[in-house]
Order: sequence, then C-alpha cells, then structure tokens
Amino acid sequence: MADDPGTLSFAMVGGDGPHSYRHNSSYQAGVVASAKTLIGNAIAEIFDVNHLTTSSGSIGIADLGCSVGPNTFITVKNIIDSVELKCQSHGFGSQVLEFQVFFNDHVSNDFNTLFTSLPNDRHYFAAGVPGSFHGRLFPKASLHFVNASYALHWLSRVPKDVVDEQSPAWNKGRVYYTNAPNQVVEAYSAQFSVDMESFFKARAQELVSGGLMTLVIPCLPVGTAPSQSPLVAVADLLGDSLLDMANMKKWTRSTYPATPQELENLIKRNGCFEIVKLEPSGRAPVTKETAPNVQMFMSHLRAALGGLLGEHFGVEIMDELFVRLTEKVANSSTLSPSSYRMVVDLFVLLQRKAA
Amino acid sequence: MADDPGTLSFAMVGGDGPHSYRHNSSYQAGVVASAKTLIGNAIAEIFDVNHLTTSSGSIGIADLGCSVGPNTFITVKNIIDSVELKCQSHGFGSQVLEFQVFFNDHVSNDFNTLFTSLPNDRHYFAAGVPGSFHGRLFPKASLHFVNASYALHWLSRVPKDVVDEQSPAWNKGRVYYTNAPNQVVEAYSAQFSVDMESFFKARAQELVSGGLMTLVIPCLPVGTAPSQSPLVAVADLLGDSLLDMANMKKWTRSTYPATPQELENLIKRNGCFEIVKLEPSGRAPVTKETAPNVQMFMSHLRAALGGLLGEHFGVEIMDELFVRLTEKVANSSTLSPSSYRMVVDLFVLLQRKAA
Repeated sequence: MADDPGTLSFAMVGGDGPHSYRHNSSYQAGVVASAKTLIGNAIAEIFDVNHLTTSSGSIGIADLGCSVGPNTFITVKNIIDSVELKCQSHGFGSQVLEFQVFFNDHVSNDFNTLFTSLPNDRHYFAAGVPGSFHGRLFPKASLHFVNASYALHWLSRVPKDVVDEQSPAWNKGRVYYTNAPNQVVEAYSAQFSVDMESFFKARAQELVSGGLMTLVIPCLPVGTAPSQSPLVAVADLLGDSLLDMANMKKWTRSTYPATPQELENLIKRNGCFEIVKLEPSGRAPVTKETAPNVQMFMSHLRAALGGLLGEHFGVEIMDELFVRLTEKVANSSTLSPSSYRMVVDLFVLLQRKAA
Repeated sequence: MADDPGTLSFAMVGGDGPHSYRHNSSYQAGVVASAKTLIGNAIAEIFDVNHLTTSSGSIGIADLGCSVGPNTFITVKNIIDSVELKCQSHGFGSQVLEFQVFFNDHVSNDFNTLFTSLPNDRHYFAAGVPGSFHGRLFPKASLHFVNASYALHWLSRVPKDVVDEQSPAWNKGRVYYTNAPNQVVEAYSAQFSVDMESFFKARAQELVSGGLMTLVIPCLPVGTAPSQSPLVAVADLLGDSLLDMANMKKWTRSTYPATPQELENLIKRNGCFEIVKLEPSGRAPVTKETAPNVQMFMSHLRAALGGLLGEHFGVEIMDELFVRLTEKVANSSTLSPSSYRMVVDLFVLLQRKAA
C-alpha cells in the first residue's frame, strides 16, 4: 500500500499565503457550484437510503484529490445535506445517521491546513487519507459515496516512452505533446488508460454495492485534438518558460484531456460500474465577458502548480517563472473564449453494481 | 463535533528538527516496548477473531494521542502483527483481512510529518483524525481496537475553580498544586474525572461489542501525594522558571497523576467496559544507573512541551526558558531514583461489553 516511488506526487500550494490554493481556487469553486445540483439530484434519485444505511452503521464518504479546502468542504456538505434530506423524506430521522468523511490527497498535500480549516459546524467525523488514488486507499466495501473533482486528468507519471530516447514516442526537446508525433499523443493516452484502470479497480473494491461515485473531469469535445485544449496550451507555454530560464530538457508532470468517449470506454472496460450519467456539467459557456483575465488565471495556476514546480525546480525561481509565463499567456490565444470551448467539464455519475 | 473553544489543544513538537518529538521520544519508546508483550498477550488471549472479523469487512484500529511517530507506528505494527498471528493460528488466512488505522491527535499536531513518516511496508490503510479524544471522533461501533499511550494524564483544561479568585480552590500565584490547599488538588482530581467520563463515554460508542482498548497511563502509587510525583515537581519548576522570566501569573496546561484506584473507579462508573487487566506495565524500576540524566530528560520534555509553551509564551523565549528549567531540575531531586518510584506506568486492558 506504499506509494510507488516511480510515480510523482502532486499537491496544491498549501498554507494560507497569497499564492495558496486556499485563496486561489475560485475557478474550481465554479466547477463545484455547477456540480452541486447534479450531485443533489443523483442522491435524491438513486441513493438507496434504506439499503445503504441499514447495511452498515454509518455512511462513508471520500473526496479524492481534495486539496486543502474550501471547495472540498462545500462538496462534502452538499453530499451530506442531500443524504439527510432524502432520509427525512423517507421518514427516518437523520439524527441517527452518522457520517465519516475521508479527505484524500497526495502525501505532500498540506493536511495541517486542511485540518485547521475544517468547518466547526460540520455534521461528520473527519479523517485525512494521504496517498495516490491510483491505488487502494480504503478497506473493501467501506465507502458509500466517492467524489473526485478536477483530479482525474492528472497523470500519475509522464509516460516512460516519452522520455526514452530509443522509443518512437520519445518527445525530444519537447515538454508536452502539441505538434508532437502521433506516438507521443498515444503514449499519453495509454498512460491515462493505465491510470484510469487502476483508479476504477481500486474504487470498485472500496465502494459498497449500490454506492455512488461522482466525477468532474475536464475533457476534450469529441473531434478535437489535444493540442487545441487550453490545458495543453498552457502546459506548453510553461515548458517554454522553463526552457528559457534554465534550459530544462523536460517537464515531468502532465495532465491529459481525454474525450468523453475515451472515458466511457474505460469505465465500460472496468465493468463494475453502471454509468448513470456522463454529460457536460452545465458550466455556463465562456464568453468574452466571462473569460478569466490573465492575472486571475495565473493566480489559479500558481496555486495549483506552484508547489510542485517549486519542489522540482526550486522555490527561488517561481516568481520569475510566473512573470515569464504570464507574459506568454497574455500574448497567446490561450484564454480566448474559443479556446475555452475546447474544454468540457464532464459530470459522471456511476453506481457500483452488485458484487 | 467541533472542538470546544474553551479547551486547550496540545501537541508534541512537530517536524524533524533537534527539538522535535520525533527525535526525542525514546523514553516513550521504552513505554511502548514494555507494553508490547502486554498488548500481544491481550490479543492472543481475548481478541475474538471469529466474531470481530466476520461482523465487519475490516478491522478498525485507533491510536489516540499518536503524535508524529515513530512510537505510534511501532505500537500499530505490534497490534496488527498480533491479530494476524491469531488469525493464522485459527486457520484463516490473514491475507483476506484488511486493517484501517486511524492516527488521532489534536488538530495542532503535525499530521504532515506523521503522513510523510508512514512506514512504506505497512499492512494497513492509514488515516489521520484531528481532534480531542475527550469527545467523539469516530462513527458508532466502527473500531475494534483502541490504544492510548501516555496521553490520558493530560487534562483537557485547567480546572475553572483554580483560576477563579472567588473560589476556595483558587490557586493564587501558584502554577500547579504542590503545597496548594486541598481544594486545589480536588479541583484537579474533579477535572480528571470529568475528562475520563467523556473519554470512556465516547469510546464506549465507538468500539464494537467485544472490542479491546489498551491504555498506558502514568499513575501515582496508592498512598502517595501528587506533590511527590516527578511529573508534578517538574511542572512546578517550569512554572517557577516562567515566573522568573516573565512574571507569568499562571500556566494554563496540566497533567494529573491519578492513582490506579481512582482510574479503576472511573472505569467502573462508566460501566461499559470489562476491566481485564489493570496493573503496572512492568517497566524496569529506575536505579541510580538507569535514571535519565538531566540533558536527556530536558530534551524529552522540550519535545513534549516546547510547542505548546512556544504558542503561549512566544517561541523566542524557549531557549532561555529551558536553560533556566534545566538548572532548576539539576539542582532538585526530581530525577532521583526515589522520585521516579513515585510514577507507575499503569497498563489497562478493557473489553467493550455487549451493548
């Protein structure tokens, strides 16, 4: 159950400072808000309170890739409020029902900040669980609801072939896969597939029969090339900035924007989950007016990536790196509304089939 | 389930530095070692593997007041090894058995250090649980084994009466209760009683029927006055040092060395636990040769108290404070073998009665 030392851990910037995720996660907050109704409806419609609350003494909930809050607390409250509401509407008092919530993220996540930020008026027992969600984190059949928002697009590692000079997928001198040979894109896709396979296999063991899992994951619209995604464009600009500054040959961490079809195929291949919903989360389309400005976008990006980049390349170069990157992003079309249309936030609702 | 704001939280010195608990907990390690056989025997003799492993999918273990390791990891490994051994001797494979371990301490504990120190070869799913063990921390009937070593002698707060000028128990100008009026000692004793009542009430709900709880707690031998305990003597000297330096009127945190009889009465008053064992832990008696030297003792004390003291009085005075305190301890009989005989490490083994 130990972390594979070959994999890379990843965590948002901890603490309470100006570059912290805590103060720079309003974009993710928008994602959480748009998922709120979807999660509430899912519980109202198919969370089987009779079965799930009698088979065990308490309800186990996990938020995977939780970071340090506040978004994770909002999501968890939404889940619990919805379950309590359903219990009341079914005529049994929710006061007898107890909830245990597991906040999961990589071991490098700032759990101290997470714990000190826990809401005082919470209706649940809280626990932090460090480790990669690409492996097992919980005992068998111990969870009733699992959520993962904006977490699954992170790969567990850069594909081996991409950094292997002997491989046709060697991504020579490139930091990402825009304009890279097909083999490079395929290597990233294969890594995503391996990661999702591990993810679904682990969750299938941990969720009780009938338990629910909700995922919010940035995807590419069907028929779009990964290079058209702003996620990829930003990663490219980041790599360029690193090359400018330190002649870094590679950047060792990646996201992969899958297509909805690709994700659906991976869920079906696992076979343990019923796909109840797989649809855009309904985030309002980005327009010229609502497109994030460069400064806000960069604050978010630094909160999400600053910790990891600092660890790899030294915290002392972070200020310069983000100045350079800001300039590149400002001079690109990365933040244009049309570029944003190349990201769909997919909402996926899965139900664990009977084992 | 929030922490009562009126109570004081308390945590060992985190991190990896020279004053960290991590590097200054060998005394506690001795306590852990002497409890090892006792815990192993308890599991071999009365942990009902048939009942406890079939009634739920996995075994829940909690170490309360765990600090940051390494002692907590040693204790947990000992518990799990013993359960696995018993399973094997009963002919069912322990490979099907899964363990979930909850590491609990106050929210100010350094969970980040705890998580990064988790043993790579562990046979369990790990979770951190922040909060006071004087209240509920876990869902009903979710734990099979609870341990608390060297944690229960800390009071949740200084008794109200002791700091109330109108009360006969007002401890005017004193930082602790050596040579204090009887009412002061009684106020401390009453607080210990309230704390233990909350503790046992919470654990009685969280432990499954038949589940075990082991406690190691420094106690006073019967017939000894609290003032004879080195725990109390050191607290007095600490208070004197603070008075010397900053004219502090009071020191707001206390331990209470109960007698074995006092503890036994409190367990019986709760009524939910069978007392299987309540006896000295068998730590070898301290002699002139084995009595800790002043420097080692002070390192341990600083690891245990430095964080809390720094928070209250400022980290900048810690070096001076511990220099002064070291001098006072060296000039006292606190560390004499005869003084050490005034502390008994009590080992208590309890079994949750059928609810």
